[in-house]
Amino acid sequence: MIIVVSSQATPENLEHLTAVLKERGYDAHLSKGVETTIVGAVGVMSAPDEKQAFMEQLETLHFVDKVVPVAKPYKLVSKQFHPERTVIDVRGVRIGDPAKVVVMAGPCTVESPEQLHEAAQAVKSAGAHILRGGAFKPSTSPYSFHGHGEAALKMLADARDEFNLPVITEVMDVRDVQLVCKYADILQIGTRNMANFTLLREVGDAKVPVMLKRGMAALYEEYLLAAEYIASRGNYEIMLCERGIRTFETYTRNTFDVNAIPAWKELSHLPVIADPSHATGKASLVGSVSKAAVAAGADGVIIEVHPDPAKAVKDGAQSLTPEAFSNLVVELELVAQAVGRTIR
Amino acid sequence: MIIVVSSQATPENLEHLTAVLKERGYDAHLSKGVETTIVGAVGVMSAPDEKQAFMEQLETLHFVDKVVPVAKPYKLVSKQFHPERTVIDVRGVRIGDPAKVVVMAGPCTVESPEQLHEAAQAVKSAGAHILRGGAFKPSTSPYSFHGHGEAALKMLADARDEFNLPVITEVMDVRDVQLVCKYADILQIGTRNMANFTLLREVGDAKVPVMLKRGMAALYEEYLLAAEYIASRGNYEIMLCERGIRTFETYTRNTFDVNAIPAWKELSHLPVIADPSHATGKASLVGSVSKAAVAAGADGVIIEVHPDPAKAVKDGAQSLTPEAFSNLVVELELVAQAVGRTIR
Amino acid sequence: MIIVVSSQATPENLEHLTAVLKERGYDAHLSKGVETTIVGAVGVMSAPDEKQAFMEQLETLHFVDKVVPVAKPYKLVSKQFHPERTVIDVRGVRIGDPAKVVVMAGPCTVESPEQLHEAAQAVKSAGAHILRGGAFKPSTSPYSFHGHGEAALKMLADARDEFNLPVITEVMDVRDVQLVCKYADILQIGTRNMANFTLLREVGDAKVPVMLKRGMAALYEEYLLAAEYIASRGNYEIMLCERGIRTFETYTRNTFDVNAIPAWKELSHLPVIADPSHATGKASLVGSVSKAAVAAGADGVIIEVHPDPAKAVKDGAQSLTPEAFSNLVVELELVAQAVGRTIR
Amino acid sequence: MIIVVSSQATPENLEHLTAVLKERGYDAHLSKGVETTIVGAVGVMSAPDEKQAFMEQLETLHFVDKVVPVAKPYKLVSKQFHPERTVIDVRGVRIGDPAKVVVMAGPCTVESPEQLHEAAQAVKSAGAHILRGGAFKPSTSPYSFHGHGEAALKMLADARDEFNLPVITEVMDVRDVQLVCKYADILQIGTRNMANFTLLREVGDAKVPVMLKRGMAALYEEYLLAAEYIASRGNYEIMLCERGIRTFETYTRNTFDVNAIPAWKELSHLPVIADPSHATGKASLVGSVSKAAVAAGADGVIIEVHPDPAKAVKDGAQSLTPEAFSNLVVELELVAQAVGRTIR
Repeated sequence: MIIVVSSQATPENLEHLTAVLKERGYDAHLSKGVETTIVGAVGVMSAPDEKQAFMEQLETLHFVDKVVPVAKPYKLVSKQFHPERTVIDVRGVRIGDPAKVVVMAGPCTVESPEQLHEAAQAVKSAGAHILRGGAFKPSTSPYSFHGHGEAALKMLADARDEFNLPVITEVMDVRDVQLVCKYADILQIGTRNMANFTLLREVGDAKVPVMLKRGMAALYEEYLLAAEYIASRGNYEIMLCERGIRTFETYTRNTFDVNAIPAWKELSHLPVIADPSHATGKASLVGSVSKAAVAAGADGVIIEVHPDPAKAVKDGAQSLTPEAFSNLVVELELVAQAVGRTIR
Repeated sequence: MIIVVSSQATPENLEHLTAVLKERGYDAHLSKGVETTIVGAVGVMSAPDEKQAFMEQLETLHFVDKVVPVAKPYKLVSKQFHPERTVIDVRGVRIGDPAKVVVMAGPCTVESPEQLHEAAQAVKSAGAHILRGGAFKPSTSPYSFHGHGEAALKMLADARDEFNLPVITEVMDVRDVQLVCKYADILQIGTRNMANFTLLREVGDAKVPVMLKRGMAALYEEYLLAAEYIASRGNYEIMLCERGIRTFETYTRNTFDVNAIPAWKELSHLPVIADPSHATGKASLVGSVSKAAVAAGADGVIIEVHPDPAKAVKDGAQSLTPEAFSNLVVELELVAQAVGRTIR
Repeated sequence: MIIVVSSQATPENLEHLTAVLKERGYDAHLSKGVETTIVGAVGVMSAPDEKQAFMEQLETLHFVDKVVPVAKPYKLVSKQFHPERTVIDVRGVRIGDPAKVVVMAGPCTVESPEQLHEAAQAVKSAGAHILRGGAFKPSTSPYSFHGHGEAALKMLADARDEFNLPVITEVMDVRDVQLVCKYADILQIGTRNMANFTLLREVGDAKVPVMLKRGMAALYEEYLLAAEYIASRGNYEIMLCERGIRTFETYTRNTFDVNAIPAWKELSHLPVIADPSHATGKASLVGSVSKAAVAAGADGVIIEVHPDPAKAVKDGAQSLTPEAFSNLVVELELVAQAVGRTIR
Repeated sequence: MIIVVSSQATPENLEHLTAVLKERGYDAHLSKGVETTIVGAVGVMSAPDEKQAFMEQLETLHFVDKVVPVAKPYKLVSKQFHPERTVIDVRGVRIGDPAKVVVMAGPCTVESPEQLHEAAQAVKSAGAHILRGGAFKPSTSPYSFHGHGEAALKMLADARDEFNLPVITEVMDVRDVQLVCKYADILQIGTRNMANFTLLREVGDAKVPVMLKRGMAALYEEYLLAAEYIASRGNYEIMLCERGIRTFETYTRNTFDVNAIPAWKELSHLPVIADPSHATGKASLVGSVSKAAVAAGADGVIIEVHPDPAKAVKDGAQSLTPEAFSNLVVELELVAQAVGRTIR
């Protein structure tokens, strides 16, 4: 870590600082300048929690201006410690494969066997690889529909068997993790639960592939630390997912942070999925943003498709019709090829 | 709700819209303008979930520009439906009383019986009313300290008995709600769990006073809906808490949204608490922001105090020393009096 | 406009409102609901300034909850009023042409004839169409380099003649508009001056093609109104430019709002350019984000290229080397073709 | 500055770095750690522009992870270099005096001699010290009212003479600075022009007191650098002004960043004014936020007051009536006294 010392620091202050650092196993390297003195503190690899606390303690010293950490706080999900890219195989679908782009699609909410059947058929025939559908739904309002629960999980499992489409669905409650694992191929952690650390640990223990959505206001570092929670329990099959962040703009539901795609690929070895449906909130923008994501290097997209968006119980405004989705997959294939990949 | 129709809509489109509205029990009132037509749809008080879905469905119509809701989506926490202010009595401490300002204080984390004892003593002798202290700690890093759990809860209960200070502490896991209720007088829901709806429901069932912190990027409406989750289970003893929001500014840990204090008092009858420690992240700013909060009408403040911030295992940089805290309470009393209240 | 009336409004209040509306030439259409009454006010096409003031005046009535505008406040730049897309011809380069993607490139700052010559050569030989280079530089610090001014403009004009590359450069001062017009083919308005309305009017009068960068925190509507300022003076050759917005994320210099590209194409007929250099601030991310922009439908990109980024007087960290740029243009051509366009 | 070197750096890389630093006059102090090497570079006080460019150049080296500046980039406005607080005397009103809180008030826009006369009378009789009023108005829409210009300036000067109230008004155009100086006692730079550097330099040359409003998305450092622009031309009579920043919240017009008040007083010696009218956009919130600002240590407030807000040509919704304003000043005096100051 680096300690920036105030220009008012006395020689005694610097001695005190050096002593405190030595006591905790750090070597102090002083660089004295005209206005400030910088102290480089290098030392034992203490546990990250102690390190963080120690840095905050140093900041309480009146002659310390700031303490700057140097090392990244995550390890298991970091590219630095694991340079080969992770590829997750879900019933034969390879997510993170440099030659492939994976398409996940389906309705926001599983409404009925008929609706899901129609949606799955559309998804399959368009050439998508994985079926999405909500059984447990987070809703801003307590009075909204919260999903059909296990009944919906069963419908998803039936659709998987009929169409040979692996299934992804959200889990919100630590007490439901086992239940959802019985039916789903990929567990989804929603944006509102990105920092629900008890849930992260639980899915870390579950050893099932997980797609972790970025929190609405999460910094890259916080997000990768959330993934590290899962990895730290021994579950390394994690997909990152950019689904739009909250900004001042209100024309779109969220702002799709396309920078995140190449940035996360620099910082981490995990596959990166894009969710243009939630990132825009408008069906008319989903196609363009999907293509942008693939061009930027996303390993996959997840798109809301509904047999009849005008009758959807949720997210109708951002859902594609089967026809629009089918056309989009054709266009996405062209963009995928332009960056050396394929959807097929 | 209001439906704004595109200038390209044909008479047939308008007829179709009117029919759809009538079918769902709404009366349509058309206002035809030069460029746009506005449709006011007034009708049955349908369940909020159906209403929301119906609005999204209407937005999928190609000739509809936007659908604007009119009614507020929360009821139980709304001032409109419950004009008298809620006062919560916690072992004789009245939170929300127009004549009082409540001070909650204590360490970020319960570290040891000695540390908590010292902190509680300082808090009590300064004139504060409620003791805070973390037993279960949310940490951005999986490698950080996560609190002493039940052992810490017991220390809190001991301190309460010794100093006659009701106790507030965070609960993060739905499975811990019963346990925490055994020891705590007020349950705290942290900012990261504001939209953890399963946890909200669980504390709603617990019927214990709850302080719900605003999410880092939560709109007022979303936040009040989170409170509505708790209220909808029959627990009305809810305190709102502004703890700073995430913005682009990095000098401070968060940005304290002081507007929220009078705004929430316009919108809701619930007591409003301010957390200047997390909102600033810097001990040197806590005093000024505490005074601002009281001047703006906050019903209380919650402040981190540590016997020796330079040795705190967490949040040392934002913790006040006992002496600084004691001086602050004296200053806060003057500001409280200036707005017609008292801390005593 | 729509006026949402409070549930406490009396019949007298409604009568008063109706009278006020009538007096100003509006017809009032009431829709009475259980909880609220909505008033649709449709009427004379009053001047936008009066309309805005009138809406604010209505909001001061104690029984009015809110006033919602319906019509978009911009006209000349709106697609609704001008459905054909604008194509701007700059010395034969067609910007906004559905079949073409335009590449603008060059150094952040014009440093010397040699540096610019080298950069222009690299830009030309890679296949780019327009040369960028800063003569007047906005700098956050008063002590930073502010550009070589007219000397740099002359170097740009020389490079244009030598390489047959039209030139784009920033103008910051209303008093420099005439001077810059003497040398430049396209005037650039920087992000910090997006709401410098006196400058907007001046370039509106200049009748030279303008690229208007979006302000760091500008809503789409505010941005399109800034473009409307230019158009309202009779200058319709305006390019929009997404250059990243300010968010909470700090890993990248800004957040590239890729949603804006298809959104602006829905709302406006003006060409849309993307600036991935400022949007990311990191050379390693520029390529991916450029490809994303083209895939999303951008009509062009503007990229910082420097013969030797390690010696750049500004923006070295986000500048591409000639070699990296040349490779990127090859990749961009593939993406352009995937969306039915070409750079050539 | 501090240079964080990648773990992959070779000894040759480090040698190269040291040589580059030495060549530019810096001493390099290496701190080698297990994972990273930190280089503290201390040296000649080079001009800030060269320093910034040099840091960016270092970041282009492939083995450099990041370069962290240490010294603050502003000097003249910094408390470190000028520990005594600045007090600005405007016709006998002392702004920044530790014993005083200054109240500035008046209409958003100067509409007519009658309106201004009524407003000035109300402002004066309530006990405020300075009259505000807009002659040149920045408007988001080109079609809005832009102020009465010089005619309004004359009305302001007349009101000053009649009521003995110094006058503050905005200047937007570099070409109007001399004109506005003829009539105004304090020049206001609006939020949209905070980074209009040519205007900043011009008012720096004018040597008249300036109130510089913070940009909507400006970091503290950027804002203080904008003040430094003015100071660097020899004009030290600068007031800072927090007027709300742009965040995701939409219930209020902006978010008042109350943290900024104590933070700027730590960082700078300049007086700090609060603008609760623009920060909230709602008359019902102005009072509470004004009191918060004074409690947090603001040296003054600037408040919009209109004889009849329901007829205001601009900002009616956030303007106080004379009666509400008069009551507020009484309440503000109580809060001022609670923090050891007075309005009288």
